[in-house]
Amino acid sequence: MVDLNRRGLMLAASGALAASALGTPALAAPAERKIGYAIVGLGGYGLGIIAPQFKNCQHSRLLALVSGDPAKAKRVAGEYGILERNIYNYQSYDSIKDNPDIDVVYVCLPVAMHAEYTIRAAKAGKHVLCEKPMAVSSRECEAMIAACKSAGKKLMIGYRCHFEPNNLEAIRRARAGEIGKLRYFRSEHGFVAGNPSAWRLKKAMSGGGSLMDIGIYALNAARYMTGEEPVAVYATERTDRSDPRFREVEDMIEFELEFPSGVLGSCMSMYSANRNQILLMGDKGRIELEPATSYRGIKLWVGNGRGGDGAAEITPPPGPGATMWAGQLDHMAQCVLQNREPIVAGEEGLKDIRIIEAVYQSARERRRIALRA
Amino acid sequence: MVDLNRRGLMLAASGALAASALGTPALAAPAERKIGYAIVGLGGYGLGIIAPQFKNCQHSRLLALVSGDPAKAKRVAGEYGILERNIYNYQSYDSIKDNPDIDVVYVCLPVAMHAEYTIRAAKAGKHVLCEKPMAVSSRECEAMIAACKSAGKKLMIGYRCHFEPNNLEAIRRARAGEIGKLRYFRSEHGFVAGNPSAWRLKKAMSGGGSLMDIGIYALNAARYMTGEEPVAVYATERTDRSDPRFREVEDMIEFELEFPSGVLGSCMSMYSANRNQILLMGDKGRIELEPATSYRGIKLWVGNGRGGDGAAEITPPPGPGATMWAGQLDHMAQCVLQNREPIVAGEEGLKDIRIIEAVYQSARERRRIALRA
Repeated sequence: MVDLNRRGLMLAASGALAASALGTPALAAPAERKIGYAIVGLGGYGLGIIAPQFKNCQHSRLLALVSGDPAKAKRVAGEYGILERNIYNYQSYDSIKDNPDIDVVYVCLPVAMHAEYTIRAAKAGKHVLCEKPMAVSSRECEAMIAACKSAGKKLMIGYRCHFEPNNLEAIRRARAGEIGKLRYFRSEHGFVAGNPSAWRLKKAMSGGGSLMDIGIYALNAARYMTGEEPVAVYATERTDRSDPRFREVEDMIEFELEFPSGVLGSCMSMYSANRNQILLMGDKGRIELEPATSYRGIKLWVGNGRGGDGAAEITPPPGPGATMWAGQLDHMAQCVLQNREPIVAGEEGLKDIRIIEAVYQSARERRRIALRA
Repeated sequence: MVDLNRRGLMLAASGALAASALGTPALAAPAERKIGYAIVGLGGYGLGIIAPQFKNCQHSRLLALVSGDPAKAKRVAGEYGILERNIYNYQSYDSIKDNPDIDVVYVCLPVAMHAEYTIRAAKAGKHVLCEKPMAVSSRECEAMIAACKSAGKKLMIGYRCHFEPNNLEAIRRARAGEIGKLRYFRSEHGFVAGNPSAWRLKKAMSGGGSLMDIGIYALNAARYMTGEEPVAVYATERTDRSDPRFREVEDMIEFELEFPSGVLGSCMSMYSANRNQILLMGDKGRIELEPATSYRGIKLWVGNGRGGDGAAEITPPPGPGATMWAGQLDHMAQCVLQNREPIVAGEEGLKDIRIIEAVYQSARERRRIALRA
């Protein structure tokens, strides 16, 4: 694990930049140019989860902040050794175009702001890493993809589990046929939503309820675990609208996914209980992850037993980064450095949002909705 | 656990009968009259599972056999100390009416024979314990209920999990509000069907595939765990019809149940992998059983943790019998002795079959089917 102190990190990064500017190849890995990130939005995720992860990265550094709260931004900048001139607010945001040290903008804003801040970043000539869910509608997703494409910039969605060792090992074993022919996928994801005034419970800010926020992990896992795209959905929603938390967005939604190979997916999302698991069943065994996509403590079992027997806990090989977040940040950095497409590009986010729209439609209309291929 | 040897059992039983005939109350519990059972069908379940259970019973004794295989019947009779005159075949079956020692007929035949042998037993003046699923159609179930009612005889369905300590403790805790307001139920039940020529894979004998045989545990559990009757179902079936096992009946079927309180149930049944579990989620915690309904090794967890944490394994108080089967057999015996209705009467079996018919219809028509109240 790379865990340089702040001073060491910044010195290494400066050295890498200098070497790169001179056309001199770096002598050691740490001297390679590090990609400069600006975090947009210093909320729980951007500040609490992403900012501390750059110390675990090999190719990424935190260089700039965009925040509507000048005092908070100043304090955070001090903590992370960010220059005062690299602090932006939402008015000055577009001027990042004049800052060549910023390569990537990481959009950690409420969902309804993703499209605007992604498109403005692309117009400012920056690559974008945007948190999931990608946006409040597929139309917005399409606009984001178009903006990045027309600016010639990368767009990646913050699907951190694609960089998580247990999930990667589960995918590898499923693809290797270790559990035989796949038949059934199931994932339940939920947590207890607390504060009724949180942005995630305001539809105008979040675009939807538990499905957009936590259920999307089940949906995305259904796709990466099976390696297939669903052809139809059926969904049922249950929300206590008298609960002050759920006046605007759904609490529980259950949805079934039909895959072309015959695999069935059964997913559940909720804001009123804690739940975090994935199950993949084949005709020769099963793979279980529980917790499956949480910030820590993810565990993997593989086995073939009747009832609860016979599944062994697996320690996966190391993932692409010291942590899943470092793997994610460095993947985007390497895509920029090597001009590659991110493995979870904007199209990946769009696919989930299109399915989510069909899930909501199915729940409203109480009928099976076929998805276009 | 009452574990008399065969001689002891028969002597005690004879003593009880004699005392009863004389109108003399028995002095000790073992001297109470034991209810005489005839097992109809000496297949895997009747012979392998039920016959050995009478040694664990307090109020039930195995007294007669009905079989199409005279040599097998004679051998089994010898093993269990059954008198030769208490061996019947399918032709002589109706003459059980002349045998006052037979109180209850336990129908352990292929499903398509349940209705006929239940109705003939009722006409012979016998109470009936019939294996699940009750019959191949709700029309047959209704005829069975009517026949027993008109004969003034009890009808019970072999739902052994209603006598299983872990399942009972799960129900008790759910009803006591230990996991808060119920929101979600999920159960997956499956096993690997082997021999393609087994009767369970012949539609004319079984009435259906995995749903009738093993999925019914998930359905019945959805009802006993929630204490509610579903108001709508949606189902999707996936069967590889080129597999010689599945030419006539379904392999995998997934179905969703909507309950009036807002609880959602998600169930899956299959014949191509081993799976046996139940989950009940409330807004304050969850109850898990895995394996949930198997013949042995059932385990119960109750807890409220994020991800996989915080669920503690529970050792339930003893159930109503030394084993779930003994509890089941003795419950029927006590219903007969005390003229009470079985807790899992014919109406309980009919309810499941009506829902199963709606599940099949939903899968065929790919639409939500509302259930009549």
